[in-house]
Amino acid sequence: MNYSMIRYITGWMLKLEAYFMLLPCLVALIYKERGGLAFFTVAIVCFVIGKLFTYKKPVNQTFFIREGFVVVTLSWIVLSVMGSIPFVLNGDIPNIINAIFETVSGFTTTGASILSDVEAISKCSLMWRSFTHWIGGMGVFVFLLAVIPLSGGSNMYLMVAESPGPSVGKLVPKVKKTAMILYAIYICMTLAEILFLLLGGMPIFDSLATSFGTAGTGGFGIKNDSMGSYNDYIQWVVTIFMILFGVNFNVYYLGIAKKWKKALRCEEARVYFGIILVSIVIIAFNIRPMFHSIFSTVQHAAFQVGSIITTTGFSTVDFDMWPQLSKTILVLLMFVGACAGSTGGGIKVSRCLIAFKSIKKALDSYVHPRNVKKIKLEGKPVSHEVVRSVNVFLVLYVVLFAASVLLLSINEFDMITNFTAVAATINNIGPGLELVGPSKNFGSFSDLSKIVLTFDMLVGRLELFPVMLFFYPPTWK
Amino acid sequence: MNYSMIRYITGWMLKLEAYFMLLPCLVALIYKERGGLAFFTVAIVCFVIGKLFTYKKPVNQTFFIREGFVVVTLSWIVLSVMGSIPFVLNGDIPNIINAIFETVSGFTTTGASILSDVEAISKCSLMWRSFTHWIGGMGVFVFLLAVIPLSGGSNMYLMVAESPGPSVGKLVPKVKKTAMILYAIYICMTLAEILFLLLGGMPIFDSLATSFGTAGTGGFGIKNDSMGSYNDYIQWVVTIFMILFGVNFNVYYLGIAKKWKKALRCEEARVYFGIILVSIVIIAFNIRPMFHSIFSTVQHAAFQVGSIITTTGFSTVDFDMWPQLSKTILVLLMFVGACAGSTGGGIKVSRCLIAFKSIKKALDSYVHPRNVKKIKLEGKPVSHEVVRSVNVFLVLYVVLFAASVLLLSINEFDMITNFTAVAATINNIGPGLELVGPSKNFGSFSDLSKIVLTFDMLVGRLELFPVMLFFYPPTWK
Repeated sequence: MNYSMIRYITGWMLKLEAYFMLLPCLVALIYKERGGLAFFTVAIVCFVIGKLFTYKKPVNQTFFIREGFVVVTLSWIVLSVMGSIPFVLNGDIPNIINAIFETVSGFTTTGASILSDVEAISKCSLMWRSFTHWIGGMGVFVFLLAVIPLSGGSNMYLMVAESPGPSVGKLVPKVKKTAMILYAIYICMTLAEILFLLLGGMPIFDSLATSFGTAGTGGFGIKNDSMGSYNDYIQWVVTIFMILFGVNFNVYYLGIAKKWKKALRCEEARVYFGIILVSIVIIAFNIRPMFHSIFSTVQHAAFQVGSIITTTGFSTVDFDMWPQLSKTILVLLMFVGACAGSTGGGIKVSRCLIAFKSIKKALDSYVHPRNVKKIKLEGKPVSHEVVRSVNVFLVLYVVLFAASVLLLSINEFDMITNFTAVAATINNIGPGLELVGPSKNFGSFSDLSKIVLTFDMLVGRLELFPVMLFFYPPTWK
Repeated sequence: MNYSMIRYITGWMLKLEAYFMLLPCLVALIYKERGGLAFFTVAIVCFVIGKLFTYKKPVNQTFFIREGFVVVTLSWIVLSVMGSIPFVLNGDIPNIINAIFETVSGFTTTGASILSDVEAISKCSLMWRSFTHWIGGMGVFVFLLAVIPLSGGSNMYLMVAESPGPSVGKLVPKVKKTAMILYAIYICMTLAEILFLLLGGMPIFDSLATSFGTAGTGGFGIKNDSMGSYNDYIQWVVTIFMILFGVNFNVYYLGIAKKWKKALRCEEARVYFGIILVSIVIIAFNIRPMFHSIFSTVQHAAFQVGSIITTTGFSTVDFDMWPQLSKTILVLLMFVGACAGSTGGGIKVSRCLIAFKSIKKALDSYVHPRNVKKIKLEGKPVSHEVVRSVNVFLVLYVVLFAASVLLLSINEFDMITNFTAVAATINNIGPGLELVGPSKNFGSFSDLSKIVLTFDMLVGRLELFPVMLFFYPPTWK
């Protein structure tokens, strides 16, 4: 294990976090909040530690996938722990386990909250919460920018192995350039959303926080009813942007490169839009009697479907009150998740596609044992390596899921709460059903449960294996 | 598709069913029940159709895996449909969908019932219900006996592919001989249980029905409280036999062959007993306050754990009233299921083992990319083919599960009912939680839901792929 490289990159991350924390400091200045001092203090500490860690450049820059996985996990943990301290210091979230839960939920773009009254906390804390989503959402790109130049490109494999299908890294030979492009798309789309929200009469603070939450597919609300009290126009803007941020970013890249035909042919995106459309239609029929007009029925169906499949987690209504069919569809969408090359979580549409195709392939192999075709995605054959990694991913996913539900059951909460709490965290969504429904929060869980769910958020966000490897003893031998 | 072979084997099955139906006829004679006439009539019909179907031996006896899958699915469907008619004719279950549900539940050794008062139906129907478990339990062996001699042994692959790990077929070169041995073990163990139950003062009728239900890991009770009203001795006898019938039959075969060491080293059986022991201990601690003595606490914990992991489904108490931790453990055991070479259902311990080992292998491959060892089971390397088939099995399992829960949600029952109803049927257990808890039944579901659950019982019992292939259009081209 190349410890000096890990130290160096972690230091780099801490310096970055120090810069990021200037935003809540600025907010505190504007709103004259004393809580901003906590952010300023922690920013200074982060910067000093970061400087110390990066003072000496490592001599040995050899970097294997093992180091890559460790450093990505460590970064998320360190960022979260440091990022949670201001909440404790300024008293907005005095309990450290709660503060870490909230910050991990932010950086992993989950949006699950332990706060029962978000409107009661200070503006600077509120902005920091939403901003962690935005930082987390571009986490993979930041990671590429920070790690790849040092590791000589061997981490390309990480992207390929982790996001099946058309990985972002394949587009441009130079990974750094790719990351920069994705980064630019991400920033431009965020700015576009801010603009559209401002045009709808949303205050600047709300526009920023909401756009950060949408871009990272995070979902921390800044109101107790999430997005429920905003007007129809704003709800539609958020719906559209949530869905757009769940699309494979390759599509936008191809669009910029003027390869329109190729962009429109993206199989994963087509299936993604197909699932969204079908879900909206079925749910709209199912919830029709609950709303006064077809327009608002479709609006709420579209918002909730877009919010859940992209794993954002905003809500305009309490969908826990919806009929069973609609709730079941939403729960299933929690697992499907967004496209692979997006900021969204969940299993990902391309993994589901590969899984379905491997079932079809198995059936075909029984019908025509001598004429078995390779699985194709986006028109290209998928290597056995990727199919196997998808399968193992799904198996590990189920095992982690079951273990988490078991550990949560010690709580004596009902099974739907436990099941959907795990689904909402491991898929980085936010709200579940029953005690963790859209109008509730995660505050009532025991400390053990909060730790389990914090782990689930991390493991889900980092595509399972990096975090598993971090806690796997042979890694450290 | 070799239709004449399919016709021939189906005819063979119908003749067998005619013979099997003589048992309820006998019961009707003894108890002087007029309902027996229905069984006699249907037996005659089965025999006549069977004779017609088997009158002409097929010229072309070529038989591929596709035909094997089709014929095994068709046999289960035909046996179930014919086996359900007496219930309709004698009025014990007048509704045909209910009757088919009940009979499929019998032949698939599920034990899920639509009857709210089993004590109200005739003795002959009661015996037929339980007897279908016994027939279904040895279904795989019967299938081997009936199909293999005709197919020239190509169906060996079926057993190997379907039961990962030490498949029963590998033990003796001649598959027919293997099947005969398993058959003998099955019958001897059933007789042993009948004897032990009679010694405990159980009436002969109850002993037979209970033993049939245990041997097939079925679980149809003949009392409304399942096994709750029998004495402690009887409950322990049933507990022990349930667990014994869930063991990989290879262990008994090795025992008979006096290969004790090898029998005791069976990895799958060891893990199976380990899971049972750990589950009993945790549940016993968890439910301790509910019972008056440690003895009865352990007794009920052991019974329920043994019943659920072997996918039998008998119960001595209403475990839906147990604390959340115990319920969650039982629900997880539903998925684990029994050993691969047994009459039990579920995912199977060996598949779970292979799944866990493939996760460990994936982690190791990141730590030591150049030194990846093959997965081993029972000390022998497992082929990539088997690992892949296990993975695809699990993926298909999850997809079918999700689809079933979605279809059930149209009912507007609660999510726990829907979830555990699917778990209880696809894993061939019987009872679930809430509306399908041990003290409830499946009668309140809509017809659509009953059809979905009937499909789940079939697809689960036949290890998913045969039934899927049966309904896969290219199979019939």
